[in-house]
Parts: sequence; C-alpha cells; structure tokens
Amino acid sequence: MSAIEELISEFGRLPGIGRKTAQRLTYHLLKSSPVDARRLASALVRVAEQVRTCGRCGNLSDQDPCEYCTDKRRSTQEVCVVEEASDIAAIEKSGNYRGLYHVLGGRLSPLDGIGPEQLNLSALLERLRDDVHEVIVATNPSVEGEATATYLHRIIAPLEGVRVTRLARGLPVGGDLEYADGVTIAEAFAGRRDM
Amino acid sequence: MSAIEELISEFGRLPGIGRKTAQRLTYHLLKSSPVDARRLASALVRVAEQVRTCGRCGNLSDQDPCEYCTDKRRSTQEVCVVEEASDIAAIEKSGNYRGLYHVLGGRLSPLDGIGPEQLNLSALLERLRDDVHEVIVATNPSVEGEATATYLHRIIAPLEGVRVTRLARGLPVGGDLEYADGVTIAEAFAGRRDM
Repeated sequence: MSAIEELISEFGRLPGIGRKTAQRLTYHLLKSSPVDARRLASALVRVAEQVRTCGRCGNLSDQDPCEYCTDKRRSTQEVCVVEEASDIAAIEKSGNYRGLYHVLGGRLSPLDGIGPEQLNLSALLERLRDDVHEVIVATNPSVEGEATATYLHRIIAPLEGVRVTRLARGLPVGGDLEYADGVTIAEAFAGRRDM
Repeated sequence: MSAIEELISEFGRLPGIGRKTAQRLTYHLLKSSPVDARRLASALVRVAEQVRTCGRCGNLSDQDPCEYCTDKRRSTQEVCVVEEASDIAAIEKSGNYRGLYHVLGGRLSPLDGIGPEQLNLSALLERLRDDVHEVIVATNPSVEGEATATYLHRIIAPLEGVRVTRLARGLPVGGDLEYADGVTIAEAFAGRRDM
C-alpha cells in the first residue's frame, strides 16, 4: 500500500471518519508542512507510551495517581462517579467541582453483558472507607446510566456517613422549552425550585 | 501539557475537526489498544518522510516519477489536467480514464493573488511537446475552475496537434431534476445529446 493510501486507511479506522473525510485529512497534511504530520504522530506515540489508568480513581492520565487524585487543593470528602474518563473533562470545564473523581469504565448494560463485576466498583467501595462524605453520581441521563445510578445508590446508601446524590435533571441552559422532550420537561417540573 | 491534552489539541488542528471531535477521537484511541495509535503515528511519519511531488506531473506520491507517470499500461497521448492531487483519486475511482495526469496545484484566483505563474503550467507546456494528442481539462466546475479552464484553452489551443477538451456539465447521475440548480439545468440543456 502506498504511504498516502495507508494514512487514508488509518484515518478511516477512527470513529465517525469516513473515507472522504480520511482523504481530506490526508491531503490537508500533504499540503501542509511535514512538521504538522510529525507533531500529530509524536502526540499519538506519547499517548500510547505514557497514558495509563490511574490505580486510585480509574481516570486515564500520564500520571499514576492522576492529576486529580494528587491535587492537594481538591476536597477528598466528595467523590464524583462518572462512566468514562472523558466525562471528567466535561465536568472540569464547568469549573465548579473541586472534589475527586471515580471512573466506572462503563455503565450497567445486561444486554451487552456488562454487570457490576465489569465495572470499577470494588475500588470505589474501598475508597469510601476513607473520609468520604458525599458520592455524587454523574452517570449519563440514559436508561443504562439511570440503572447504574440506582445500583450505586443501593450499594452505597447503607454505608454510614456517606450521602449519595445525583446531578439535577431539567431544562438545559440556553435550550428552548418548545424543543425539549417530554421526559425532560417532566423532570424539570418534578425538580422545580422556589424563586 | 498532558499527553491527552496534546493529542486533543493536535487532532483539533485538522480541518473540520472541532474540540469535541478531537476529544472523541483521543478517547477512542485511549480505549483501544495502543497499537492503533502507533499505527496511525507510523502512517503519519511515513507520509511525512516519503511523499513528495512528482517532478513530471505534480502528483503527490511516494515515488518520483509517480505511479501514474511510470505505468506503462497508461496512454501517454492524453493528459488530464486537475487542480489538486486529491482530484486524481476521484477520477481514478470512476475507473474509465487510462491516460496521464497533470496537477496544477491550484486554480487561477486573482483575489487570492494566484495567477498563472503560481500554477504548475510551464511543466505542462513542456510535456505537450511530447506525443500528446489531447488535454482533458478537469478543473472544478466553480468560477475559478472555469476561469482556469478558459485560460488553459487559450494557451494550449494554438499548439499544433493538441485537442483541448473539458469534462461535460450536466445533471449528476442519481440526482433529482427538482433540486438541480438553474445553471446546471441550463448546461444540461446546452449539452443535450441525441438518444
């Protein structure tokens, strides 16, 4: 295979990148300086070499324990439980949360053969023996995410001194009531607050 | 910058890839085997190292002269002129053309400061001294592409024994007359053929 064909085929293996996009990316790099292609290549090699799973929280990072687990300014009393390491970036962008994280590495999904044993749960229960006052469940607002949240609540609520909360449901900020789905509106009604 | 941030930022430099897509690609690779990231990296390095411009036709290839210029089964009597090397792949996919190519490396665009001197034209005129019977102009059906085609016709038509043609304009196959634009329909009328 020619070098160009090989790069098109490698780009095409990425999710959401079809053959045409793969061609466009390849020819973009061919028209740019070779430095650009090399920089992307070295970023890929660095990720392949350095990124590992944090032994404490399950986050993906080039440090173990990861940057959140070792950040002395973060509160160790709150643990936010997410499905995937990528969810942490979204929460960090919101800029408010200053506690720790725990990555499940998925969500309960019996149809896909994913039960509690496949999730990073025993490490979570281990962590709760320390001085944790609140577990904030931030699984996705999907059927599987809700099932996972319910399961977490069931196993954590009996532990003494640990409060289990989950992120609020309601209208997305900047959204349009007219286009919100019925379930979201129902949740927004149920969770309405005094002004 | 962390390894993950660096890869997100490098993906984000590619055209049409925003921050969210860059994150998605990065986390996809993080969840896959490191082999995948390394394979993409080595394809990028190979392109950066091996791909050059063909000295004869201007195509991008890991051979010089390129695979089309050296293919003995291709007719040397026809030269198809395209704007970019990436256009060759589209024509090859159609599977009919068996002549050679010439890549201009752009199209005439006075507003962007691209005149005839910026295009790979002298090499084209040089090639026409050989046994070339037909120049097929396959510039894009855009205003600049048309201007480039007209310019090519003006400088090549006076040469003896060289026919200058351009790709037909008309309704795209599988298209819908109802949604075709007026200019395309007008071209399809002007180029109508006996059945």
